[in-house]
This record gives sequence, structure tokens and C-alpha cells, in this order.
Amino acid sequence: MLLKNCRFIVTQNEKREILENKDVLIENGRISEIGNNLSSKEEIIDCSNKIIIPGLINCHTHAAMNLLRGVSDDKNLQEWLNEDIWPREAKLNGELCYQGTLLATAEMLLTGTTCFNDMYFYTGDVARAAEKSRMRCFLGQVMFDFFDKDKTRKIIEDSEMEIKKILELKNERIKPTITPHSVETCSDDLLTQSRDLANKYNLPIHMHLSETEKEINDCLDNRGKRPLILLNELGFLKNKFVGAHGIHFNEEEINILNQNNSFIIYNPCSNAKLASGICPARELNNLCIGTDSVASNNNLNLFEEMKFGVLLQRVNYNEVNAMSTQRIFDSATIDGARALGIENEVGSIEINKKADLVLIDKDNIFMNPNYNIISNLVYSFNGTVSDVMIDGSFVVRNKEIVNFDLRELIGKLNSLNF
Amino acid sequence: MLLKNCRFIVTQNEKREILENKDVLIENGRISEIGNNLSSKEEIIDCSNKIIIPGLINCHTHAAMNLLRGVSDDKNLQEWLNEDIWPREAKLNGELCYQGTLLATAEMLLTGTTCFNDMYFYTGDVARAAEKSRMRCFLGQVMFDFFDKDKTRKIIEDSEMEIKKILELKNERIKPTITPHSVETCSDDLLTQSRDLANKYNLPIHMHLSETEKEINDCLDNRGKRPLILLNELGFLKNKFVGAHGIHFNEEEINILNQNNSFIIYNPCSNAKLASGICPARELNNLCIGTDSVASNNNLNLFEEMKFGVLLQRVNYNEVNAMSTQRIFDSATIDGARALGIENEVGSIEINKKADLVLIDKDNIFMNPNYNIISNLVYSFNGTVSDVMIDGSFVVRNKEIVNFDLRELIGKLNSLNF
Repeated sequence: MLLKNCRFIVTQNEKREILENKDVLIENGRISEIGNNLSSKEEIIDCSNKIIIPGLINCHTHAAMNLLRGVSDDKNLQEWLNEDIWPREAKLNGELCYQGTLLATAEMLLTGTTCFNDMYFYTGDVARAAEKSRMRCFLGQVMFDFFDKDKTRKIIEDSEMEIKKILELKNERIKPTITPHSVETCSDDLLTQSRDLANKYNLPIHMHLSETEKEINDCLDNRGKRPLILLNELGFLKNKFVGAHGIHFNEEEINILNQNNSFIIYNPCSNAKLASGICPARELNNLCIGTDSVASNNNLNLFEEMKFGVLLQRVNYNEVNAMSTQRIFDSATIDGARALGIENEVGSIEINKKADLVLIDKDNIFMNPNYNIISNLVYSFNGTVSDVMIDGSFVVRNKEIVNFDLRELIGKLNSLNF
Repeated sequence: MLLKNCRFIVTQNEKREILENKDVLIENGRISEIGNNLSSKEEIIDCSNKIIIPGLINCHTHAAMNLLRGVSDDKNLQEWLNEDIWPREAKLNGELCYQGTLLATAEMLLTGTTCFNDMYFYTGDVARAAEKSRMRCFLGQVMFDFFDKDKTRKIIEDSEMEIKKILELKNERIKPTITPHSVETCSDDLLTQSRDLANKYNLPIHMHLSETEKEINDCLDNRGKRPLILLNELGFLKNKFVGAHGIHFNEEEINILNQNNSFIIYNPCSNAKLASGICPARELNNLCIGTDSVASNNNLNLFEEMKFGVLLQRVNYNEVNAMSTQRIFDSATIDGARALGIENEVGSIEINKKADLVLIDKDNIFMNPNYNIISNLVYSFNGTVSDVMIDGSFVVRNKEIVNFDLRELIGKLNSLNF
């Protein structure tokens, strides 16, 4: 396929080049050439009226929770989980998780996200939805034992079974991760065995970290140390590690993070909505971004997340230079790819990378006038992209989902009642 | 015109009713009946797949500044004005203000805003753009003398001339206001004469108020009192008064505001972007909402503004109940109308009110599942409405501007260079 005369290409390459009026040739799902006057015997798409950006990467989701949009809005994390979310999640089953995740993939694709890093139950069914929509993803079966020693072994065995199932799919876009829920819900034993499982399969660990003051205080009270120190002592930071939220860090912890390759996933909307605090994002060398679930956001629109992400840093530090639009755009593209260890495959528009690309109408009302394209993408654009491709195949075309009937799915979900 | 079988009608009436499967009859630009099985000999629109909400009201804009989107993003208010905005504004003329405002009206209409409260230069040209797009608006010729006594009289005379011009338009949708810029830029004499002008024509006063700490400190240093106290002593709060930003108030000032009918306009995105602080919105009885200009936001999307408005209150007070979604939705509808004194005409969907209505696709990805429609509108929806009518006439139809060629305008504006 040839994307002809792309008006702007926001490459996110090392020089952060923005190319104008170039062609992008795509062969076998990868970008094979970028230049002028390229030709192809395959499909040619006129992009003279399009801005092309790399597909965005949402590093923290619970996709199936799209089922629960708007069910509970005004509680803090603990009450929200205990009173409203966990009782509803107890009613879920695999088919519902499939449908909820499918809805989430539609929302992500329609707002330019091509890859997500998920933590939930029924991982096999979540994978089934990702296969249907053709999204790239990392899936973890969430683990917690609530310090009940009789449960730990079984939880690890179940998780290993889910890993094997995902590996057996042999779908290059769908990869397993290890996802202990948090230090609030996992015993040291479960954490240790999680780490060993991650080592055994060479997989990244993805967990919630330092989200609330309560989590810090409980960990100090019960374990005599702060959550990040505990995880560091257990060797978590030697692995590929991505920690979601990362709000309550002291200086020592920020130094530890910055001396490792671990990434913190900034979730500005969810953190504000649950009144958990503000991530010290500007202090962190390795930053990616996520939406969390729609139950605490309440959408999966990374464009909105980027804007609030920058604004909240300015509020937090009371400084107009607290975070640049380029840095937050990096966190949703190339730095998201680095966080997940796929920076050689996606996250930028460069030769040999996979063609995970998003097309935006150049004449979109939010993108004009066009003095600063990164500023417009972060501060102004509302996420209504025109087309999306993954591995060189269109998954959104003219603002419609290609691979399934979204309207039918919505009708089905509104007949449920959680 | 008859809107038939509206799936949901978010009335914003006193009971905040959400009606289901009702018809809305529109005659002579007003809502004449809401009920079942209504009939009409005029056009009938099937709304069985639509959510109908009142047109939103943006209470603080500088619409023509849509010309300047993205020209300067990382400076505080004073530097931003002095170094980047005012030098560019010096290059403006009436025709450019017309074009910039026309672009702004397109952005507002396409995101469901039907009325705006503007403060800028070349008010006659701003009015011309509003006439073209058929938007409802309040327009003020901005006044500042920078404490130069020789200028004051001329500024007031010019403002009065602009008021007369707007009154002569005899366009019921376009009304004048009195807009002294702020206590930072206006002498006591200019403020006093502004007040007298407002009294003479019985017009609202719209000005910037208590936006930065510098403004408070300068006012204390130079006038021995805080800005709101100064305005109160000058009799401003006896008039219809709307103050934009309203960030730095002490308890005494909040009490004064709450004992008057004056409204504060909450501008969460602009205040965060310029690192000015957070408006104590939850303490204020009379609250409306605005975007400020795209130069400090960088869009005019009130749906995004409402979301960030609630989130920032939660951050400010570290409480999940700091502000409800219903209250922020009120601020953009019926309370916006109250702020501008037009609550008997617009701001809710009720019999005899003007038909300023916004249609949203029921199957929009952000509106499903639909457990809580106000929550979905505030927290999830990205503003992509399907249709908009003002005074009972469509101004947006199937996501396209009806009354002018938006693409042509965008082409023209991108050939400029500020």
C-alpha cells in the first residue's frame, strides 16, 4: 500500500522530524520507504489532506471495564472498589469481558490508539476481542491473594495457564505480561512468585504502584517500608517493569526509578477523578501514559489524557514550563513503546517499523490554524481521527470500525444492567 | 419543525428531568410543545437515535483569537501577553477579526455551543461573523487605558459608539456588553465611567478578575485594596456583573460574591495552562464556565472544559465530592444563561424557550453504555455533536456547518502568518 502525498508526517523519529508532502510505502505490514514520487502496484491512498501520526500506545487499561462506564463517579479509590466496582465485577463472565473489551478497542481505535497494555480477568476472552479488532496489546491476568496464603499457589498456576494460552495463540500482536494487582492486595509471597514467573517466561511486570496515601501508609505499617522500596528489594526493577499511577514518591524513590529502566505510567484523569493526587511526572526520566479504565476516567481518549497530563503538571508545580507538549506526545508514542519493549517495532514512523498509523484530516477544526502541529495535537484536537491502520491494514476507515459491527455491539451492551 | 421520538431529552428544567421518547414541536423559533404523538405540517426530523441537550453557553471568549492557536504555549500570563499576544494583536484588522471569529463560531457550533460572551476589538466585525453563523452572543469592545488619563475619555466614547452600532443591528441574538479589561489595565476613572456606561444602557459588565497573584498584589500596592473590594466599592456588583477566572479570592471576597448576583466564570483549562491557579468554584453560588481564547486553552470545546473543571476541583480540594457532574453541566447551560440574564430565553429545554438545541448520536462511542447520561456528557463525550439549531434553524447538520464554507475559510487562514 502507498500513502501518497501525506501533507504532514509527525515521525517521532530521533530528531522528531515533521515531514511534508512525502509518500509512505508499506510492504508486508511494515514501512519500507518514505520519500517523493514512490510508486506501488498495490492500493494507493491520497493523503494530501491528511496528517499522519504514529498509532498511540495506552500503557494502562482495564479494557473490559468499558461495560461499567458511569456506574460510579464520586467515591475515592477504596470505597469505589469495595462498594461499586468489585461487586459488579463478581457478576462478569468471559463472554461479557469479550464484549466489554471489544467496545474498548472500538473506542481506542476511533481515537487513534493502536496498542494497549491491559490488566484484567478472563484474559483469553480479552485476547479474543483484540484478535477481532486486530489491536496490538499486552495482556495480564490480574493477581491478588489478599494475604490469604492458601490462595497464592493457585493464583500463580492460573496466571501461568493464561500465559500459555496467549503464547499458543501465536498472534504476534498479542503478548502476555505478569500483573500482580498492587502491594495493597498481594502478599510478599505472591509478589516473589510473580517475579519468578516473569523471569521464567521473560515477560514484563505491570502493576499498580503508589497510587494512594493509604497504600503508602499501609505498606509502612505492615511491612516497614514504602511500596517502591519493597518492590526494589524483591528485584522487580531488574525486570522490565511498568508501574501504573506512581503518585506518592519521595526523593529517594524518584532517584531509584531514574537509575533503572522501569517506567511509570501517568494516568492524569483517573488520578484526578479519584482524588488520588498528581504524579510527579516531570521528575521521571521514563514516563509513559495511560487512561486507566473508563470507570475512573471516563473514556479511553489519549488526546484528552495528554492535554490534562500537561495541564496537571503545570498546576502541580505552578509553572508554565512544567511539561512540554513534545514530552507528553512522546509518552503516548515512542516512550510508550519503550516502556513495553517494542520501540524497535512501533512508536514512530520510520523505515522497517510496523505500519501502525493514524490519519487525521488536515482540515479538522481543531488542527487549524496550523502553527504548531504538536501543540494542536496535544492541546486542541479531540481525538476524532479519520483512519487507523495496524500492521499495514485499515482497522478504521472514514471514522468507522472495519472489523465488526459497532452499532450492534452497543445495542447488545445497553440491554445488560450492571 | 417537529423533532420526533427524541430518544433522550436532557431538559435542564428545574427538576433536571431527562425525558425519553418524546416529541419536541418548534414554532417560530421556540419550543411550543413537548409530548407524545405530536404532529406538524412542517419538516419532521426522526430523533429516535438522538440525545437532545440545550445549546451550551461559553461565558468567556476572545473569539477572534482563533487566529492565534498554538503561537505561544509556554509562558505565564504577563509574558504571554507582552511578548507574544499583544504584538500579534497589533497587526490585526477588522477583516482578520471577522475571519478569526467566523472560525471560532464554527468550532463552537461543531462542539455544541450556541451562545458566547465575547470581549475583543473590532466588535462590529465580530458581530458580522456572528450574524453569518447565526450564533447568539454578547459582544464587548475591550477597554484599557493603562492609567494614561489622556486616553480614558476617548476609550469610553469609542466603546459607546460600538454599543450603538450593535444596537442598530437590531439582531435579537447579538447584544452589547461593557468590557473593561481588568483592574491591571484600567484606571479608577475608566472603571467608573465603564460602570456609568453600563447603567446608561442597562448592560452587563464583563471583565477579567483576580486571575493572577500579581494582579492582587499590584492592586494592593497601588490602590490599597484587593480587586474585588475595589470593584464592589465602585458599585460594579450592583450591576449585572460577570468576572472571568476569579482564582484568587479570600473568604471575605467569596462572601461578598455569594451575597450578590454576580457570576464568576470558571476557565479551568486556561488557568491551568497559564499556571494562574485554580478557581475556588465549589465555594461560589453563582458559577458559569468559559474556555477563554484558543491561544490559552487551546480549543473552545466546552465538553472538555466541563470535564477538566470537575477534575480540577477534585485536585484542588483533594475530595471526590468537590463538584458534581450535574453542577458543572448546569454551569454550561442554565447557569450560563442566568449569568447573562437570558435564563427565560435559553439554557434549558422547556416550553416557550428558544429552540437552541444540540443533537448527539445515541450510538456515539463515548455515550455508551448509558447508565448516567450527565456523567457521559461531562466525563466521556469529546464534543463531536451531530446537529445544532439556533432559534429553531439548523446551523450544523450532519456534522457540517450550514451557513458558510468552513474548508475555504481554513484555507484562507493558513495562508496568513502571525
